[in-house]
Amino acid sequence: MNFRYFCNVKFLAEIEILPKKGLLDPQGKAVTHSMPSIGLNNVNEVCVGKFITMEIEAASEAEATATAETASKKLLANLIMESFHIRVKAI
Amino acid sequence: MNFRYFCNVKFLAEIEILPKKGLLDPQGKAVTHSMPSIGLNNVNEVCVGKFITMEIEAASEAEATATAETASKKLLANLIMESFHIRVKAI
Repeated sequence: MNFRYFCNVKFLAEIEILPKKGLLDPQGKAVTHSMPSIGLNNVNEVCVGKFITMEIEAASEAEATATAETASKKLLANLIMESFHIRVKAI
Repeated sequence: MNFRYFCNVKFLAEIEILPKKGLLDPQGKAVTHSMPSIGLNNVNEVCVGKFITMEIEAASEAEATATAETASKKLLANLIMESFHIRVKAI
């Protein structure tokens, strides 16, 4: 029996990925320009990015955060154009 | 001079949009299956959605939240397939 896995807890990681400030965000611009057409004239600076949730089995919150960070850096975010922010909580 | 606009405060609204539970999320499935290839065997149930931020000028947090809700319902989220969650803070 693998004691390591027996000890693991499930965490929910929420990863927010947004285009870096100053870089082109055509989707955000398009949404900003569409706002008046649905009657909203007080909305500006819309940025459109990705929101990713995942379940992580880990021994601690720090380990779960490290896993989410690896996933973001290696697979989910394009670090040249995007920045990411991770929240982790036990579930 | 328009006193209403003079009184307004800027808020940052963050909107998380995710596919509803039980509905097909092919992008999430693809990411889940890719995790072992980057050395992560403890990740499951990946969901991929959208993350949208916007600046809203409003008289109160409640008004800003209502604006973000209108934008989500009318333009940003597909309510048949997606659910959304809004956070608003003054900036």
